[in-house]
This record gives sequence, C-alpha cells and structure tokens, in this order.
Amino acid sequence: MNLVLLLPEDLIERDGPCARAVLHDRRLDHLRRVHRAAPGRELRVGLLGGRQGRATVEAIDATAATLRVVLDTPSPPKLPLTLLLALPRPKTLRRMLQTAATMGIQRVVLMNSWRVDKSYWKSPQLEPAAIAEQLRLGLEQGGDTMPPQVDVERLLVPFAKERLDVLAAGTTRLLAHPAAPTPCPRHRAEPITLALGPEGGFIADEVALFEHHGFAPVALGPRLLRVEQALPALVGRLT
Amino acid sequence: MNLVLLLPEDLIERDGPCARAVLHDRRLDHLRRVHRAAPGRELRVGLLGGRQGRATVEAIDATAATLRVVLDTPSPPKLPLTLLLALPRPKTLRRMLQTAATMGIQRVVLMNSWRVDKSYWKSPQLEPAAIAEQLRLGLEQGGDTMPPQVDVERLLVPFAKERLDVLAAGTTRLLAHPAAPTPCPRHRAEPITLALGPEGGFIADEVALFEHHGFAPVALGPRLLRVEQALPALVGRLT
Repeated sequence: MNLVLLLPEDLIERDGPCARAVLHDRRLDHLRRVHRAAPGRELRVGLLGGRQGRATVEAIDATAATLRVVLDTPSPPKLPLTLLLALPRPKTLRRMLQTAATMGIQRVVLMNSWRVDKSYWKSPQLEPAAIAEQLRLGLEQGGDTMPPQVDVERLLVPFAKERLDVLAAGTTRLLAHPAAPTPCPRHRAEPITLALGPEGGFIADEVALFEHHGFAPVALGPRLLRVEQALPALVGRLT
Repeated sequence: MNLVLLLPEDLIERDGPCARAVLHDRRLDHLRRVHRAAPGRELRVGLLGGRQGRATVEAIDATAATLRVVLDTPSPPKLPLTLLLALPRPKTLRRMLQTAATMGIQRVVLMNSWRVDKSYWKSPQLEPAAIAEQLRLGLEQGGDTMPPQVDVERLLVPFAKERLDVLAAGTTRLLAHPAAPTPCPRHRAEPITLALGPEGGFIADEVALFEHHGFAPVALGPRLLRVEQALPALVGRLT
C-alpha cells in the first residue's frame, strides 16, 4: 500500500483540499500491522477518483484511524491504452485487474474468446464490487487514484461487430499474438487498443476477426508469456 | 506447458537427434489431464540444456507416457541480461524464477538488501532443487530448454565489493529505481546488468553503492510496480 486510498465516505470534514478521514477496514489493519503507524506518522494518501496528497495520523487504535489529510496533487495521467482482455481464470483475473490499475491503464474490456473456459464467467470475481476491490488494491500499489473503466463483454462476435470500431476509433489497434512475424512496436505516444488473448492464445478465426477490424497481430519475441507477464511486458514496450 | 521439458534421464534410446522418452511425474499428469494426450498425439518437446523438437505419443496410461522424440532445433538465444534481484518473499520468488526462465533471462543473482525480510533467507524455495523446479516450469511455459544460471548472494556489500564488477564487466549497468529522474532506456541490443530491489525499493545507501559500481538509476514512469510487474515491464522496455 504505497498510497492509502480514501473513499468519499471516509471523509468526515472537508474544507477545500483539507479533510479528516476515518478508516476502519483492511486499510486500518494494514496501517497497524505493516506500516506500524502511530500518531504523527505521515502517509501518502489519495481520494478514489480525486486528488492525492499527504496525511498525518491523528489517532489510531484497533477500531479506527483518524487522519488529517491534504489532497492537493493530481494523480499521474492515465496511459492512453485500452486493454481488450480475454477473460482469464479468476485468480489471474484478480492479478490482471490489479496490474491494469497499478500500471495506469485507462480502460479494460473483459471479453470472451474460444479458449476461455466457460466456468470463468460464473466467477464471483466478475461482480462489480469484486472488480472494484482489485482495482483499489492496484491503485494503492501504483500510487494512483483514478481506476480504469472496466467493461464486460460476454459475447465476442457481437462485441466486435457492434462496438469494437467505436471503442477503438482513433487508436492504433494491436493484437498480441506470439506467432505474428511483426514485433510489437515501441515507445508509442498515441492512444492504443491492445487485444490480449487467453492462455493458449486466440484461435485463427479470432485473429481474422480482429484483423478485419484493423488490428495488427504483433509479437514480443520467440517465447510464450503468461498473460500476467505479457501485459507488463507489452506496456513496458509500448510506453 | 507449451513445451514438454525432458530430462536426460527420461531418454531411454538415443540415436542422433532421435530418442524415446518415458515420463512418469507431474508431466505425465499434465499430459493426461490438460492435454488429454492419446497415442499419435504430436507435442512440442525439448531436452533440458539441449535442443528442442517434436514428439509423438506412442503409449500413455496412468503410470507412464512413452514418446518418440526428434530433437533437431536450437532454443531461441537467451537475452543478454543478468538480473540482480533482491530476494523476494518465497511465493514471489517462485513466480520471479519462472518469469526469468520464461522470458529468456541469461543469469539471475538473488541478493540481499536492507528491506529483504531475514526470514526469506530460510525459505526452502532457495534450495537448489526448488529453484531448478521453478526454472523448469518457466522454460515449459516459454518454450525454451536453457535455464538461466542462478546464484545466491546472502551478503550485499561483499558481493558488491568483490564480485559485482567482474560479473557486470562489459555490460550496461542499470538499477530500477522508481524515484530516478532518468527513464529506463529502450530497445538495447548490448548486454545489460539490471538490479531490481525489494518491495519498498533500495535504500539510499544501496543506490549509492550501485552507483559507485557504475549502475545508473532508471525509472519506468510515475507509478510503483510490484517486482512481478516490474521485471516483465523492464524486459519489454529494454529488449
């Protein structure tokens, strides 16, 4: 937790950039157990969806921490990157959502693909509250306050036909595909829409579908990465 | 398991690039359970430390799989990258070793650092057999047969004073440091030695120690990544 992420309902007194915040949950445990925070301790904080800044611990015990906060700094700009992610297994999904938030990805679309196990769509990790929790954990790691927008598309072909061109309008469209002869481009400043397949990759029909919508298959080298490895590697390469 | 990694002791008949291999362990389970392999099935295989190629399943049951293999293709070249990694917590260590092997990193030095919890040095994950197992899993994911060399340095200062300059001779020396004003360079072809700190980062004295040995602190952007995210992001950026 490199930044203590405050929710609007944590704030009890707001006066411009200043406020008091009272924490009770996981964040209180973390402050006590990991940070060993005592009164007077300075912390980096941020308001979900808002600014970030500093806080001083006023009081802390087993039931609550009271912080005096000043929120006067904008969070770093989001990466102009939309990730189209074939739904991974639930445990991997949690990590991928955290990584997307930590790395500053602007938007994530969780989508179906032939090799996505149907059972993954029944995971409680897809509930909005579960997604939001993983995004918050990722923001706390990265030091950010603005979560990516996350959408869910359970049917790939209607998504591609009806919404993909609008969603990817004005962006460079890339599809991560280990078999592609073209290397992933480097150091791009323009907005990008990046499709990342399931373990085992996209099937040929899916590659063709994305190519039909203007996506260029690109590869990161001769080795096959797990999606948890591929996403940071792609972001590191593209940015 | 994108490549079935064979050990020399699995081979019962060798004749040039051709051999028969008999598998019993985790790999047999995986072939039956995940690949649902039956006689006649073609698989990608490789010999640990040697070449890779194709295999055909001759027989498979609950006790053994017999493969007819042809090992005629070299593995992709290793990345000319030595990773100096502050020892992470055991669960993260396993993933990092897998990632190093999957991404083709040539050499890994697990080293101490101020913020490394002392208990991590007692982990059974540091035993050579445990390290070798994680490397094999990483090679099977990446489709490689040549594991990185892994060394363990329990004392940072003697390591830096006595062995670091020899180890890093002729390489570009980089230290991943989120506070650094210099961005991590991109698309380097030359050999690199990259130091990656623990969660919480290197302390100032350690940064100074590495700078004294010619390491340039570099950052990946304004956000703080977990080491599991930072390593692929750095490799994606550097390669």
